[in-house]
Amino acid sequence: MISEASSPALYEQVADKVEALIRAGTLRPGDRVPSVRRASEQHGVSVTTAVQAYLQLEDRGLIEARPKSGFFVRSQLRSRMQEPETTRTSHAATRVGVGSLQSRIFDAARMPDVVPLGAAYPGAETLPVQKLGRIMAAVARRAGERGINYDMPPGAEPLRRQLARRSLDWGTQLTPDDFITTCGGTEALSLCLRAVTKPGDVVAIESPTYFGVLQAIEQLGLKALEIPMHPRDGMNLDALEQALRRQKVAACLAVPNFNNPLGSLMPDENKKRLVEILAKKDVPLIEDDVHGDLFHSGSRPRVVQSFEKEGRVMLVGSFSKTLAPGYRVGWVAPGRFYDQVKAMKFTSTLATATLPQLALADFVANGGYDHHLRALRHSFVSQIQRVGDAVAECFPEGTKLTRPAGGFVLWIELPKKVSALELHEQAMARKISIAPGPMFSAKQGLENFIRLNCGHPWSGEFERAVVVLGQLVRRMMGK
Amino acid sequence: MISEASSPALYEQVADKVEALIRAGTLRPGDRVPSVRRASEQHGVSVTTAVQAYLQLEDRGLIEARPKSGFFVRSQLRSRMQEPETTRTSHAATRVGVGSLQSRIFDAARMPDVVPLGAAYPGAETLPVQKLGRIMAAVARRAGERGINYDMPPGAEPLRRQLARRSLDWGTQLTPDDFITTCGGTEALSLCLRAVTKPGDVVAIESPTYFGVLQAIEQLGLKALEIPMHPRDGMNLDALEQALRRQKVAACLAVPNFNNPLGSLMPDENKKRLVEILAKKDVPLIEDDVHGDLFHSGSRPRVVQSFEKEGRVMLVGSFSKTLAPGYRVGWVAPGRFYDQVKAMKFTSTLATATLPQLALADFVANGGYDHHLRALRHSFVSQIQRVGDAVAECFPEGTKLTRPAGGFVLWIELPKKVSALELHEQAMARKISIAPGPMFSAKQGLENFIRLNCGHPWSGEFERAVVVLGQLVRRMMGK
Repeated sequence: MISEASSPALYEQVADKVEALIRAGTLRPGDRVPSVRRASEQHGVSVTTAVQAYLQLEDRGLIEARPKSGFFVRSQLRSRMQEPETTRTSHAATRVGVGSLQSRIFDAARMPDVVPLGAAYPGAETLPVQKLGRIMAAVARRAGERGINYDMPPGAEPLRRQLARRSLDWGTQLTPDDFITTCGGTEALSLCLRAVTKPGDVVAIESPTYFGVLQAIEQLGLKALEIPMHPRDGMNLDALEQALRRQKVAACLAVPNFNNPLGSLMPDENKKRLVEILAKKDVPLIEDDVHGDLFHSGSRPRVVQSFEKEGRVMLVGSFSKTLAPGYRVGWVAPGRFYDQVKAMKFTSTLATATLPQLALADFVANGGYDHHLRALRHSFVSQIQRVGDAVAECFPEGTKLTRPAGGFVLWIELPKKVSALELHEQAMARKISIAPGPMFSAKQGLENFIRLNCGHPWSGEFERAVVVLGQLVRRMMGK
Repeated sequence: MISEASSPALYEQVADKVEALIRAGTLRPGDRVPSVRRASEQHGVSVTTAVQAYLQLEDRGLIEARPKSGFFVRSQLRSRMQEPETTRTSHAATRVGVGSLQSRIFDAARMPDVVPLGAAYPGAETLPVQKLGRIMAAVARRAGERGINYDMPPGAEPLRRQLARRSLDWGTQLTPDDFITTCGGTEALSLCLRAVTKPGDVVAIESPTYFGVLQAIEQLGLKALEIPMHPRDGMNLDALEQALRRQKVAACLAVPNFNNPLGSLMPDENKKRLVEILAKKDVPLIEDDVHGDLFHSGSRPRVVQSFEKEGRVMLVGSFSKTLAPGYRVGWVAPGRFYDQVKAMKFTSTLATATLPQLALADFVANGGYDHHLRALRHSFVSQIQRVGDAVAECFPEGTKLTRPAGGFVLWIELPKKVSALELHEQAMARKISIAPGPMFSAKQGLENFIRLNCGHPWSGEFERAVVVLGQLVRRMMGK
């Protein structure tokens, strides 16, 4: 059920069709694509729409204009690279130990002279800095006492109203009363975990997964049960089902829409099956949807929660990946666990900051959020394309690369010999931050994987960084 | 060691001396106080300073001007009331169960037609709403990318610099690097508890204490060991010492400067002794100093941390009681537990909202924070005086009343027969919110106590509410 607001514009539909031709190999690198006039006839759209479609394909890094010759399919260097395979995990739940790597990655993100391929955040150049600043200024002047007073849980009503409105795009239909706002998605995830587990409990998670989740599990004294991931389809549900048969699991935490670091997208039929599997054992699902709006093609994917009617899904979202990381505003629709999450929120932070919530509510209502999201997605697609091409060019044979369906990170499998932790050290010595694979694994496995942040506009700085990374990897292989 | 910035102005010193005369009974209700000219001679100050001193005494509710007759000592109705006694507690540590009362009190605070004597927060009328709003607007326009980006722990440097500067007033000398900013004092307390305990551990706390602390202890699976409190001097250190001899305690959490609800102030010699007692058993102290700037007379009390040199004190503060509850900015100087607290912060909320931190840093640096604090303290002294007088007038004999040394709440002991929970129900039915005693006790004792919030300017609305409360209490006594 996709609402009007999120259905792709006509030109996006045309672009999607041409992209499909390229992906299928019907149009190959170096081929001239049909002229704009021909495209307008083929797809039954105006010439203007066809031009828009081609400009979008250019944004997506799929075609390029050559002066006086028209548009050509770009050399898809990275398409020569294999994808990583489905991860392998052990059957035993383990205590987690991500250690101090997280702090080092975040510290690096604050250093102005370090190339920020480590921490995953959108570059400020891709965000509406000035517009949001003006809205915040206006709200701060206008809000009076409201702005200075506590905004007690469940949080600012104008924001919850906008979230309810947008939930139609997620394939569901939540009301303002279903939401509790939080200090970012991080607090929402922490509250959900605390609401449905006690120390010693086992939580089923994706492998690889976002290291913040691993660290939260560690700090709460929980055990992680890692479920293997397919690089495109996400969680391996057969493996999950077997795991649930073998042991008691207190909760499942998943990122069905664009796992970080894989960028995988769980197909709708898998989402339905996930609901059924968890229902059988009455296991709550913490659904992290912070990347849901960052799809690279097609339309906004549905949330698992939209296939579930019993309130067993706690749906988490945030504005940190799309609008303003520093505003620290996220949310959770905790389903049947509403009361527990609200009670936890009182002792976690008491309330979410008032003015950032009101400013974001205003932006979403009146600031052209959908327009911004469209531009943001195009930026990320293009940036991932550029980084991926550079990796394909500079890294040795045997390197594998994800083809993310959304989000803004790339996950790279290096040849077996290469230690990602060692590469991380050597890269930092050269002022390049990357995120090494062991951060994404409860057992510190994934030793030869790295994640690259593509949240920033491509530039010579990044190009040079990827060249250096490639050299380091080759040197570590003894070549 | 009190720095220049916090030493009381000359007129405040004069006011303190006259207040001492009134408290001692040398000047009695109805007495004419010395004329301004006489006072200037007696105290060796200018006439202007003497006038300021008298205006402050008027603010404090201690004297009143009568036209053409001069200043007179006000009728101290509440001085006829006894103070509550030192609390009695049991020796056993207990699991906590504050239940859903907290949520009800906070919900009531959001209802515009309910008289807000329940939740403890400063009325917006006492806060610099317009000025802070203007500063936030300017900061939001000026900050650019900085305002939208993550401000990763330890948090905004300009704010930590101001905190370090102000720490001189607390009798200590912290550096910007000693602080981690948090989403309010609530997050700071939660992080401290999590950093030094594991589920099942025992935490020594004051009884009565702030219900948020009780709920945090409950939710973290900890046990509370309640230490009795003297209504003026705070924690009974003999009792603490005995308790530590009897059982293993993972941490002690105290509010030495103006316990909520008592308003007690731990004398400096007790603070030193507390440090010694905890050092013997190597027990960390979580020192909640969120009310430290709200002293009613004299100068800014020292923090316990200032008497300790081994990093065993985790000092917590916030702007929620003095400037902007809704900005959600607090801090912790976690001493030797810095790394643990910082790691917990990453998974609790990742970062504190950027712009509220920058706006508060600006206000503290340039906005006349000390001037505001002076006015705020005078408001609270006067409001407590008014509410106390009204209670003395309207409540039945046998009612006892605290004489808080700081903060903005009153703690009332009702005659034994009266159930505070029942009174809370009946008052809510009449649109009056109060905080019943059992909320402040791990064992839900203190059945005949209530706390009244005096954070709002006195008005006919509050006067009527106290009259109604007095009637309800009398009716419950069968009078």
